[in-house]
Amino acid sequence: MSTTAAAPYITDDFLLSNETARALYHDYAAAMPIYDYHCHLPPKDLAANRAFDNLYDVWLAGDHYKWRAMRHNGVPESHCTGDADPYDKFFAFARTVPQTLRNPLHHWTHLELRRYFGIDLLLSEDTAKEVWDEANRQLKQMRVGDILDRFNVALIGTTDDPTDSLEHHKKLADDPAILPHTAVYPAFRPDKLYNTTDPVAFAEYCDGLAGGPCETLGQLLDAIDASLARFAERGCRLSDHGLTHIPHVEVFQDVHETDRVYRAAREGTATADELRRYQVAMLLHVAQRYHDLGWASQYHLGAMRNNNGWAFEHLGPDTGYDSIGDFPQGAGLSSFLGELARRNALPRTVLYNLNPADNYLFATMIGNYVGAGDTAGQPGRMQFGSGWWFLDQKEGMTWQINALSNLGLLTRFVGMLTDSRSFLSYPRHEYFRRLLCDIFGRDAEAGEVPDDLEALGKVVRDISFNNARDYFGMALKGRHA
Amino acid sequence: MSTTAAAPYITDDFLLSNETARALYHDYAAAMPIYDYHCHLPPKDLAANRAFDNLYDVWLAGDHYKWRAMRHNGVPESHCTGDADPYDKFFAFARTVPQTLRNPLHHWTHLELRRYFGIDLLLSEDTAKEVWDEANRQLKQMRVGDILDRFNVALIGTTDDPTDSLEHHKKLADDPAILPHTAVYPAFRPDKLYNTTDPVAFAEYCDGLAGGPCETLGQLLDAIDASLARFAERGCRLSDHGLTHIPHVEVFQDVHETDRVYRAAREGTATADELRRYQVAMLLHVAQRYHDLGWASQYHLGAMRNNNGWAFEHLGPDTGYDSIGDFPQGAGLSSFLGELARRNALPRTVLYNLNPADNYLFATMIGNYVGAGDTAGQPGRMQFGSGWWFLDQKEGMTWQINALSNLGLLTRFVGMLTDSRSFLSYPRHEYFRRLLCDIFGRDAEAGEVPDDLEALGKVVRDISFNNARDYFGMALKGRHA
Amino acid sequence: MSTTAAAPYITDDFLLSNETARALYHDYAAAMPIYDYHCHLPPKDLAANRAFDNLYDVWLAGDHYKWRAMRHNGVPESHCTGDADPYDKFFAFARTVPQTLRNPLHHWTHLELRRYFGIDLLLSEDTAKEVWDEANRQLKQMRVGDILDRFNVALIGTTDDPTDSLEHHKKLADDPAILPHTAVYPAFRPDKLYNTTDPVAFAEYCDGLAGGPCETLGQLLDAIDASLARFAERGCRLSDHGLTHIPHVEVFQDVHETDRVYRAAREGTATADELRRYQVAMLLHVAQRYHDLGWASQYHLGAMRNNNGWAFEHLGPDTGYDSIGDFPQGAGLSSFLGELARRNALPRTVLYNLNPADNYLFATMIGNYVGAGDTAGQPGRMQFGSGWWFLDQKEGMTWQINALSNLGLLTRFVGMLTDSRSFLSYPRHEYFRRLLCDIFGRDAEAGEVPDDLEALGKVVRDISFNNARDYFGMALKGRHA
Repeated sequence: MSTTAAAPYITDDFLLSNETARALYHDYAAAMPIYDYHCHLPPKDLAANRAFDNLYDVWLAGDHYKWRAMRHNGVPESHCTGDADPYDKFFAFARTVPQTLRNPLHHWTHLELRRYFGIDLLLSEDTAKEVWDEANRQLKQMRVGDILDRFNVALIGTTDDPTDSLEHHKKLADDPAILPHTAVYPAFRPDKLYNTTDPVAFAEYCDGLAGGPCETLGQLLDAIDASLARFAERGCRLSDHGLTHIPHVEVFQDVHETDRVYRAAREGTATADELRRYQVAMLLHVAQRYHDLGWASQYHLGAMRNNNGWAFEHLGPDTGYDSIGDFPQGAGLSSFLGELARRNALPRTVLYNLNPADNYLFATMIGNYVGAGDTAGQPGRMQFGSGWWFLDQKEGMTWQINALSNLGLLTRFVGMLTDSRSFLSYPRHEYFRRLLCDIFGRDAEAGEVPDDLEALGKVVRDISFNNARDYFGMALKGRHA
Repeated sequence: MSTTAAAPYITDDFLLSNETARALYHDYAAAMPIYDYHCHLPPKDLAANRAFDNLYDVWLAGDHYKWRAMRHNGVPESHCTGDADPYDKFFAFARTVPQTLRNPLHHWTHLELRRYFGIDLLLSEDTAKEVWDEANRQLKQMRVGDILDRFNVALIGTTDDPTDSLEHHKKLADDPAILPHTAVYPAFRPDKLYNTTDPVAFAEYCDGLAGGPCETLGQLLDAIDASLARFAERGCRLSDHGLTHIPHVEVFQDVHETDRVYRAAREGTATADELRRYQVAMLLHVAQRYHDLGWASQYHLGAMRNNNGWAFEHLGPDTGYDSIGDFPQGAGLSSFLGELARRNALPRTVLYNLNPADNYLFATMIGNYVGAGDTAGQPGRMQFGSGWWFLDQKEGMTWQINALSNLGLLTRFVGMLTDSRSFLSYPRHEYFRRLLCDIFGRDAEAGEVPDDLEALGKVVRDISFNNARDYFGMALKGRHA
Repeated sequence: MSTTAAAPYITDDFLLSNETARALYHDYAAAMPIYDYHCHLPPKDLAANRAFDNLYDVWLAGDHYKWRAMRHNGVPESHCTGDADPYDKFFAFARTVPQTLRNPLHHWTHLELRRYFGIDLLLSEDTAKEVWDEANRQLKQMRVGDILDRFNVALIGTTDDPTDSLEHHKKLADDPAILPHTAVYPAFRPDKLYNTTDPVAFAEYCDGLAGGPCETLGQLLDAIDASLARFAERGCRLSDHGLTHIPHVEVFQDVHETDRVYRAAREGTATADELRRYQVAMLLHVAQRYHDLGWASQYHLGAMRNNNGWAFEHLGPDTGYDSIGDFPQGAGLSSFLGELARRNALPRTVLYNLNPADNYLFATMIGNYVGAGDTAGQPGRMQFGSGWWFLDQKEGMTWQINALSNLGLLTRFVGMLTDSRSFLSYPRHEYFRRLLCDIFGRDAEAGEVPDDLEALGKVVRDISFNNARDYFGMALKGRHA
């Protein structure tokens, strides 16, 4: 590494403000493996044990967090999603980093440079070249498998469309030596089954899932079952859904009405209200299937997407023009989960919330669906998921932890996940654990929890790894088996 | 007590982080009597000066906070609302307690064991038997009156239906020696007067209130007046209302329309909009009566109830399946309170809010209804009530105190109430006072309020007791008279 | 000044909790000039270099913050908006001040007494007379220009109706010696162009703007252009808008429909939905004009006004009976700003939010409109404005700063503004700067930002002054030019 003086930043005791916090992190949390149950890593890269050409490819490509900060800093689109030279894009990011003070990017950037490359420089236009060269030098000896080993990643849960062939998951299963200590499983994300905005695209999607004309609800449900079976065969025990909110409906559709609306949706002749109720009917249907299969379900709620007309027309979706919405969440969640409970068909469920104003609503909502019917006897059965997307930072994570603590059982929390598209995001688990240990450390030294290091250490280990392992119940491998 | 080593938890200086906070609590707040102006204690138990068979009866029976935590921890319904053996239920709770770290239950549980029974053990499956035996031994010498004396409870405001006979209140009034130092008064809670969901139940309720067929609005209003007079005779000076939110209506019903809708509501033929406007008309009517009688009114807003279909069918309401809603609060409150102000008929009012996202809305809303018309000249006339239900914990109470501080006059706050169904909840006043003293102590030592212990001590005493006594104006008795 | 012992309150290190914070404030922030880009000071008082008769005139008259606190404290309306003697009104305020502990008024009051008059007494009924006499003595030598000089005010942006003659601005421009070091510019606030509630008043307003019958949209747009040109001639580069929220519309009106609805609005025959869409059409029109002129725009969103029927009938609007609403903000902002982006016609924009529950929504919303189209290349182009009105206090400002930090670029923030009607509000800039320095100081000493005083000092100076100067781009004068 270079001889440039290192800034005393992101030290060993980063975020750990007292002795108890430091002991909890260093002696209990740090050594736990990572159980990254939900992310958006490409299965293809995992199955290929991919290498990366340069720091841009592994760090900046596809990262909408960085694009947003760069745009705020006046960087033109050519250097975000555009086709500028990789180093020029990296340089534009490096110039932006000093402007991100107090933004999580400032922490993440320097944590990642340290943990992946041992680089303790502050990134800026002055250090950009040195960082670029050193990281690229090291990347020559760094494949995906090396990263997973270094970060002790026991499990990766990818996110997959029901139409996906799962070929990469099959390859990983067939050849355990590709990633010898990291289990990889798909998750079933059927959002396109209830996205009826474009009738032609919707019909094509359903036909694709069925492998031929899918003109009736019965055909669609058969196709869903076949896909679920295919996912199950690949070890899937988890689903995921992304919506603004779960619509509140007064009367649920019966199967005949759903069939009629499904046909109309394909033709573009269904009303907005019918489509809303169709969406709920489909969500209820797949949830019941997860319940019967013993899978868990996830719901990511609250994002308002594609807010910039120019960007959507020129760049398309998922390019960093999404934000936090203020959708009504209570009534829809209550009627949806309440109906599943009434049917005794509620799977284990993780609710993720994007608008922090709704944290308390979500943290109390999960308490309505534990204990009753066949959900009894399962500690932590309903989960309020960790701070997500814009909330995946110190303030947002603290709010979620506090809401869950005050209104539920933090000790039963399945904890952190990266939700990331990047192989350089594993330090987020470290970040979460430091924060969690600091919260318990502060409480202990203030006398607000019993000052019992062993007991707190057990809780911290559970939330870091054990709870998620037990909750999701997917088989581990190699040294984690 | 046992020889088991006590954990140094919930010490004398619990929640008090600096010298000023400690001085404020120990020298000013601690000795103040308790003015528990709103709770759900059974008048029958008060009038009978009830004794309790065991720790389950006095501590767990009917406590939905504990049920929710137990269910989160996997405890089956048989050990929550079900008919398992009392000790087995207690044991299930004891096993849950170590899992409630950072939940208010952990504080409450150990504070209550200390303050009622001098037990400083941490409750768990290991200590369950010892705690059970010791508490039960002490309960043999502990009646309701002993508890009220020990906690220096000057006043209890119960919550009563307009149809209630108030016989227990009469007994207490007729025999002041039953509870020699604790005044007990009813509060008028007329929720069923505007709950028209079930027309048959609604009609029956109104008939019951009238003591015979109550077919016209005139008859209903007469019955309400008779009930109000009966409550007034028992010393009532307080009302209470529980709603998701106050509906916003553009045009208020006149008496003729209200009469027509009342009749239709009994028949089940009124429209949803008519019923919404009927609800507001009835709320306006009773509020005007409170104003004329010199009573105060309370509104508990924001709860979303009975969210679990299975639980509602099998267990009924109020069994711990309620949560925080995201109802529109602003427009309805503004039109309702604004109309009362326009009529110069706005009673003293306490607004309680269940969704912390609305704290700032509530804290500014009360500022719209002081000063104008006949509300002038009364310090603290409109109140933003203390953190309620899910918000009755350190974070929620702090938010309410900060919102009120920043947007109104904290010094005029009527302070804490238990809102509890349990005789073991009085330490919540201690909890609130410690928190309040800590907030002032931190501010004083940070130079954000003048560091004048005597002045701050007066404020703390006012918020602990004096403000509520002066605001509600109900006669005290015994050593508090 | 008097011999009464001064309270050690609001010291030199007020709000500065560690060494770094103190160094940042005293060595970097304190000396920066004030760029008060948005306020409600009367241009007439500026052009006249007004003097004030007494402390009431300069401090209490027109101050709805003080009225609200006084009303909460039981002060009758005669001593708020009424016609009581000025000293009696001041005395009623002085009696209220000790009751405002933890309210921003307590800080502001004593900060203002110190900074304007060197009075370090705590204001109360005991000190009222002494404060009154001393302040009035000093006011004899204090004109508006003296105040602006003392507080190093480089620029004032007033708020003006499109029909305003701008005569006072012209006088100030024609005679630079009136305020030798303070540039004063108008801002264009066209709220009445889309306030169609009262058709007669609306039609009269439009006719007034046009200087004659204004019966078609074309005539109105010509009149708007003439007004914009007049404002531009006076150096205006800024607009402002006050709304509950921007209505969400599915389909934007074309010019023919807008013309038809404009005519109907004048007649009172337009539907609510047409008027809503007219409002958006007008907002789009003027925004496009600002864009073409190179002006910035401001939107103040979230206030619910005139909530007290009695007060509105007896006292009129803007008398302290307004509060925080819970309006839907996301969809309307997204469709409005998204459409402007699509047209490549989005001006630089500052969004102010009154409901803190929406802070995260606003802080992510601005990130959707940087970078795309012709908004690229301009650092900090979209701004989340500082805590406004009820949020202009430590808690509210901290929340805004944290939201902006976590979700955008704090370093690009244009910072504080008084938004005030009073010449005694300039210490709010000091208050903001102390708070900002404390936030950075805490972060630096906790290791959450690099502990580099020079770099942090530059950021603090930028946010205090430089960013706003560069963003708004209005010419300075005298020693600031």
